[in-house]
Amino acid sequence: MIPSNENELTHAVLDRLTGASDPRFVQVMSSLIQHLHAFVREVDLTPDEWMKSIQFLTAVGQTCDDKRQEFILLSDTLGVSMMVVMLQQARAAMGGGEQAAATESNELATQATVQGPFYWEGAPEHALGANIAEGVVGEPTYYSGRITNTAGQPLAGALLDIWSGDGDGFYDMQIAGASMAARGRIRTDHEGRYRFWSIRPTFYPVPVDGPVGRMLDGMGRHPNRPGHIHMMVSAARHVPLTTHLFVAGSPYLDSDAVFGVRPSLIVDFQPHPAGSAPDGSTVATPFWSAQYDFVLEPSAA
Amino acid sequence: MIPSNENELTHAVLDRLTGASDPRFVQVMSSLIQHLHAFVREVDLTPDEWMKSIQFLTAVGQTCDDKRQEFILLSDTLGVSMMVVMLQQARAAMGGGEQAAATESNELATQATVQGPFYWEGAPEHALGANIAEGVVGEPTYYSGRITNTAGQPLAGALLDIWSGDGDGFYDMQIAGASMAARGRIRTDHEGRYRFWSIRPTFYPVPVDGPVGRMLDGMGRHPNRPGHIHMMVSAARHVPLTTHLFVAGSPYLDSDAVFGVRPSLIVDFQPHPAGSAPDGSTVATPFWSAQYDFVLEPSAA
Repeated sequence: MIPSNENELTHAVLDRLTGASDPRFVQVMSSLIQHLHAFVREVDLTPDEWMKSIQFLTAVGQTCDDKRQEFILLSDTLGVSMMVVMLQQARAAMGGGEQAAATESNELATQATVQGPFYWEGAPEHALGANIAEGVVGEPTYYSGRITNTAGQPLAGALLDIWSGDGDGFYDMQIAGASMAARGRIRTDHEGRYRFWSIRPTFYPVPVDGPVGRMLDGMGRHPNRPGHIHMMVSAARHVPLTTHLFVAGSPYLDSDAVFGVRPSLIVDFQPHPAGSAPDGSTVATPFWSAQYDFVLEPSAA
Repeated sequence: MIPSNENELTHAVLDRLTGASDPRFVQVMSSLIQHLHAFVREVDLTPDEWMKSIQFLTAVGQTCDDKRQEFILLSDTLGVSMMVVMLQQARAAMGGGEQAAATESNELATQATVQGPFYWEGAPEHALGANIAEGVVGEPTYYSGRITNTAGQPLAGALLDIWSGDGDGFYDMQIAGASMAARGRIRTDHEGRYRFWSIRPTFYPVPVDGPVGRMLDGMGRHPNRPGHIHMMVSAARHVPLTTHLFVAGSPYLDSDAVFGVRPSLIVDFQPHPAGSAPDGSTVATPFWSAQYDFVLEPSAA
């Protein structure tokens, strides 16, 4: 079929998928082709704009290296990453929903958010109550809470894989030659309880010296993320959860550059004077405490 | 605004454009964001598929260098480049249409098609009737015709900028260290007539050793383009035209890998025995002739 106009062109491209063997690939590419064509038609994209788009995408690809992923940053700042996170959790909830109903579920699973570019596999496992940010710049914070499932059952031996930037907004990975800092893995006790010390994270900008920074600039957008600490929470026979806790009162909570904020993840950090801490230790400086209970969805399988 | 579901997320991303100063940028990005989000929702894109998409786009960017533009190839093979060409010509026809009506237009402009990656600015200007493919592999072909505008007026001194692959399907640019071959510029005479010798182009594959090749493979598509010769046709006070002439009977006319074929651009190449040519010269081998009349749209300005 030789297309004679724009609508026929879209059909001609779709028709060219009839030889594909993977039905899911056909489904994804068909939808992509239709939306891509509809976009170009809708805005009546000019050859100059098309060439600028080609150059932009090329620059995004060429900004990527083993430390930086500018296409993930593009996906993050256009809300696509967060969309994938929301869809994934909705699917998991539907899958686990049948089982949850059988166990008289009465709680919703903790909401997920984006993983971001700073996860570093293999953080050290610490004893319950340890300080995972020894020597890191920032105000000491005592984190504690419980991990249960949607049926309210405490999850003993559940794993919290934790990471954050320091009190100035920098991750260890962003500092040349740095080793792991403000990262650690903690397991819950037999009642599903966890506790550890780290610092209180602050807001920071996503990298703006590449093409995505220029895009944000053109959009009139700031590049900042509100203060947050990352957690990957997992337990046997439960859907793993990747999420953050956000610091209540942090700037940019209502305009996170990557759209990761969910109101249910905003935590009040309580200020404390120097002295006795909730775990019985003595702290020489003022410190904070943050309390949060995580809820995991039982897995469908 | 903090979005609590997928639809609100799309609105939150769109709301973040209120600080942009360029209304056209806002229009383009709004449409892009809506279609991108709709695509992800529609196919319920999984985190694995998202990561594969990120890796694919990164590889496309990193395959580009000063000689190769894999994002243009991606755009070409998804029909996006041809869509932009069709939209551009439709706009030009609307702009020129008013003027054409005033001059009692009765012809349609020649249809445009993709420029492709092998245009090389600054091809040598040849005398009318010259051979622009001296020493190039392929069967000799005599090309001739007229250039007029949509009102039927002949365009004297109009420029034809011509390029093609050789008779084996290779462009000069694809051969390391090669100089210009099968390229040339020819101007029409006072009656708007042109004539030149070149070779009869053959079909060839687009580059398949990169990520776009893998995509075509997954789609079950062949990578071939039917035989064609490229022309950029221009004249003062007329809309420039970038097009091809396709060789009637060439394989892949109905399945061009970049969707560039338009029936009005398919030309019968007439076979001739060795001997007298239409321009009065004598040819020592069998040869072909191709005749095509180009029609340009008067420009709106």
